[in-house]
Amino acid sequence: MPAAVETFPNQFPQREYEIEITCPEFTAVCPKTGQPDFGTIVITYVPAEACLELKSLKLYLFAFRDRGIFYEHSINTILDDLAASCRPRRMKVVGLFNPRGGITSKITASMEAAAR
Amino acid sequence: MPAAVETFPNQFPQREYEIEITCPEFTAVCPKTGQPDFGTIVITYVPAEACLELKSLKLYLFAFRDRGIFYEHSINTILDDLAASCRPRRMKVVGLFNPRGGITSKITASMEAAAR
Amino acid sequence: MPAAVETFPNQFPQREYEIEITCPEFTAVCPKTGQPDFGTIVITYVPAEACLELKSLKLYLFAFRDRGIFYEHSINTILDDLAASCRPRRMKVVGLFNPRGGITSKITASMEAAAR
Amino acid sequence: MPAAVETFPNQFPQREYEIEITCPEFTAVCPKTGQPDFGTIVITYVPAEACLELKSLKLYLFAFRDRGIFYEHSINTILDDLAASCRPRRMKVVGLFNPRGGITSKITASMEAAAR
Amino acid sequence: MPAAVETFPNQFPQREYEIEITCPEFTAVCPKTGQPDFGTIVITYVPAEACLELKSLKLYLFAFRDRGIFYEHSINTILDDLAASCRPRRMKVVGLFNPRGGITSKITASMEAAAR
Amino acid sequence: MPAAVETFPNQFPQREYEIEITCPEFTAVCPKTGQPDFGTIVITYVPAEACLELKSLKLYLFAFRDRGIFYEHSINTILDDLAASCRPRRMKVVGLFNPRGGITSKITASMEAAAR
Amino acid sequence: MPAAVETFPNQFPQREYEIEITCPEFTAVCPKTGQPDFGTIVITYVPAEACLELKSLKLYLFAFRDRGIFYEHSINTILDDLAASCRPRRMKVVGLFNPRGGITSKITASMEAAAR
Amino acid sequence: MPAAVETFPNQFPQREYEIEITCPEFTAVCPKTGQPDFGTIVITYVPAEACLELKSLKLYLFAFRDRGIFYEHSINTILDDLAASCRPRRMKVVGLFNPRGGITSKITASMEAAAR
Amino acid sequence: MPAAVETFPNQFPQREYEIEITCPEFTAVCPKTGQPDFGTIVITYVPAEACLELKSLKLYLFAFRDRGIFYEHSINTILDDLAASCRPRRMKVVGLFNPRGGITSKITASMEAAAR
Amino acid sequence: MPAAVETFPNQFPQREYEIEITCPEFTAVCPKTGQPDFGTIVITYVPAEACLELKSLKLYLFAFRDRGIFYEHSINTILDDLAASCRPRRMKVVGLFNPRGGITSKITASMEAAAR
Repeated sequence: MPAAVETFPNQFPQREYEIEITCPEFTAVCPKTGQPDFGTIVITYVPAEACLELKSLKLYLFAFRDRGIFYEHSINTILDDLAASCRPRRMKVVGLFNPRGGITSKITASMEAAAR
Repeated sequence: MPAAVETFPNQFPQREYEIEITCPEFTAVCPKTGQPDFGTIVITYVPAEACLELKSLKLYLFAFRDRGIFYEHSINTILDDLAASCRPRRMKVVGLFNPRGGITSKITASMEAAAR
Repeated sequence: MPAAVETFPNQFPQREYEIEITCPEFTAVCPKTGQPDFGTIVITYVPAEACLELKSLKLYLFAFRDRGIFYEHSINTILDDLAASCRPRRMKVVGLFNPRGGITSKITASMEAAAR
Repeated sequence: MPAAVETFPNQFPQREYEIEITCPEFTAVCPKTGQPDFGTIVITYVPAEACLELKSLKLYLFAFRDRGIFYEHSINTILDDLAASCRPRRMKVVGLFNPRGGITSKITASMEAAAR
Repeated sequence: MPAAVETFPNQFPQREYEIEITCPEFTAVCPKTGQPDFGTIVITYVPAEACLELKSLKLYLFAFRDRGIFYEHSINTILDDLAASCRPRRMKVVGLFNPRGGITSKITASMEAAAR
Repeated sequence: MPAAVETFPNQFPQREYEIEITCPEFTAVCPKTGQPDFGTIVITYVPAEACLELKSLKLYLFAFRDRGIFYEHSINTILDDLAASCRPRRMKVVGLFNPRGGITSKITASMEAAAR
Repeated sequence: MPAAVETFPNQFPQREYEIEITCPEFTAVCPKTGQPDFGTIVITYVPAEACLELKSLKLYLFAFRDRGIFYEHSINTILDDLAASCRPRRMKVVGLFNPRGGITSKITASMEAAAR
Repeated sequence: MPAAVETFPNQFPQREYEIEITCPEFTAVCPKTGQPDFGTIVITYVPAEACLELKSLKLYLFAFRDRGIFYEHSINTILDDLAASCRPRRMKVVGLFNPRGGITSKITASMEAAAR
Repeated sequence: MPAAVETFPNQFPQREYEIEITCPEFTAVCPKTGQPDFGTIVITYVPAEACLELKSLKLYLFAFRDRGIFYEHSINTILDDLAASCRPRRMKVVGLFNPRGGITSKITASMEAAAR
Repeated sequence: MPAAVETFPNQFPQREYEIEITCPEFTAVCPKTGQPDFGTIVITYVPAEACLELKSLKLYLFAFRDRGIFYEHSINTILDDLAASCRPRRMKVVGLFNPRGGITSKITASMEAAAR
């Protein structure tokens, strides 16, 4: 499992602004069939003190490449890991997965910092 | 009629997150003409204790293939059956049916769990 | 003028669900020029006790084919006629008319049942 | 049946240039069901001595509005009538008809002047 | 400057319904460069006692063809003139102007009748 | 297996014109998995003495609904059956099949009458 | 009427390369109705010794703004004028005109230098 | 660094209307790699006493061409500079940056005047 | 390295028909950076005696997942391997690779059987 | 001016296959106005003994960033420089430039090796 995603200091911590990051090259392995799954991950967050470093984020997402994990689990895990790394005011993670057996799935999970 | 759709335990029951499932390969039979109808079914829900198992859901939807049923009836029936299977916090089912006689239909039904 | 549109009983009267019907083949006659107008009619409603029967609705809309009527009048008339037929909880009728003299028009009218 | 479509003299008869006219508002009546058909007519031609006058062409096409005719027949008839009116070097008529029973039809007919 | 746009009586004054008119063929002259500007005008309004007559509206918009005027000024002027003509419950005017120097502009202005 | 598709006499047999028929509602059963396959069938032909009757064609294609057959086999079979029914000058059948396991297939087969 | 369009020397006269220029802001006046027409002009040419200067070309096309001229005439005139200005190896001019009375027109004219 | 963006007086200061400016030709330099970044900047604001002058705005944005700056920093800096220049009632700046390493970024920042 | 792709007998060997297979989920590793590359592979072929079995083809393509290989090399290798497996009359392989550093690549290679 | 673009040996020199490279981030300076121009460059070639190295190509194209050059000149220069670097069997360079004054330009130049 990869270490936490690196961050850099947010230069505008007093302003509530939004960052949206789209990675259309997400791939993991289906734990039931052992076959690869493919999808797009969209991360939207309002930073507090820290921003996600993009190269480190890319390596974090690429680490799912050889990992057997269900859709629901992967999206909730990404949300937990990224929120732990940069401790944002708010964060939402969406996964849009390619069709399997004619069925497409989209999972959306989000969190909001308690003491804001 | 198919048995209930199988489910698996939701690993993140404390988080209110959303799952959207799109099946563009829905087909049933028109009870008036005996001819096949075609459409896309979109299911969106917030799971409580259980998630819908995709393979079982696919088989459930394919069981309409030989069944004579009106648009409004099929969408409300799917909502009732799936909500009974996984008992979600909220669920919405949308059916977009291909044109017949130049007219396209879209049916949207939803429910919300009483004690939330 | 066509008789009222036929209806059939709503099997799920206790649930507030939505039906959207799109007819891209609407045509009437411009009362000023005598030339045909063309457009798309979109009807969205929440049924109460009755649903619109699609074949009867199609015949109702086709009856405008030889009728001289302004855009605003036709949309409000369709809304009045269909609401009188099925007495829905809510109904909206939209007409998108093809360009004439480089200008496109879209008319939107809606009603809501008084005692709901 | 309408009289021949009016024409005006081609000001550049020595140059082989092409005129394409698209009418997305074609409607006729199905001779079997008595229900209206809808489609788009695309006329492409290389004029010889005469060009089709657009207003007259529009009236010609609108005259199919109350006429019972099959797809194949209407396209071949339009080609014959328009070629007789303007006697072009070459002409092609395409009809793209809206889906009926889930099936869309496109008919393409063309002619070329014998002594060219 | 053109006279006021003509109107006709609204046949459904008791219903709050919406009319949207799109004219993609708006052109005026840039007062700084003397070069033509091009754009699309979208007018949306809820009529009170009167509706805008489309032919008169078209002539009104075409009168900007030889007039030197800035984007912001033209949209606010159109809003003032049309609202004075038909005295609507609400009106919005949007102008989407073609790129100049790689930059596209969109201006949105609206008004609401005081005593409603 | 359905009987041959019905035809009607071509009224313009001396002209080489083209008919294209698109059916986006084709479904058969995969002989390996027993699961339904879905796709779009496009038939293009130049009629000789006979044209395909659309209602009969629709019933012919719907008869694949419960039949186990591979993609390549179904397209070549449709070509053989339809060419035997209407004996066209030329015919092409294309099948575009929905993704299975992330892979989409398109099969194209055609024939040309020998003595033309 | 504007003077000829200015040109500049082609720096690669020995190579047969193609230049395509698209102007979506063409407007002229209909000589029958006096109303403005709008369209897109696409000029494609292989230069010989000279290339069209874009600013001068723009002014040339804008000079049609107040000119009453039919579609067919304007396209053939633009071809003649531009070919006379830069004497290209080959040139094609296409005009795509906005719908009038529901009918769209596209005119295509081209020339090829005699001694090549 | 460029001087402040020039403005001109708002002729309709009493009306709350919106101006949206889109520049798809923004480019800066990545401070880590020294390689150019590319993106689209969308500025939306409600003017108070002054409007942004477009030519001056264009020169302001072009001054980032040789400047090493991170995405988050550039968007917040543009918002600060433009708000200081025209002191609007409200302003939003969005930057959509082209993919790098398969990852696309979108940054959205906004401000609202305190005493309104 | 995977073994050869499995095939099944072509049931229509005497007819020259075409099979197109699209896999938008191709991924390999860049041999220079060690980072994953992503792209879409399109295989078009005219079978002789054998057709490619889709499940086996999918496994063959997925075997590139952990392999360091350049774009040009992977496309030519896939062409060589698939042509060796099914010995088609003709085959073409196209790879469309996602942007890296703002640059997108498409590689197209094809072969034709010698004695045909 | 940049040195020649680097190449690497073509591993399949005996096969005539095609490489297409798209760079939507090309920018140069207009020599008349001093303002930046933006466009997309598409390079298509059939390699002989050498392929263009992508990182080196990117640096070559980025070197136009501060260079004053006309559209026609830049495309022909890129063709000459790249053909000199990798000596391909055939090469085509297309430039699609963003609108200036409402006019879009596309330049296409190509070469073919003499002794093939």
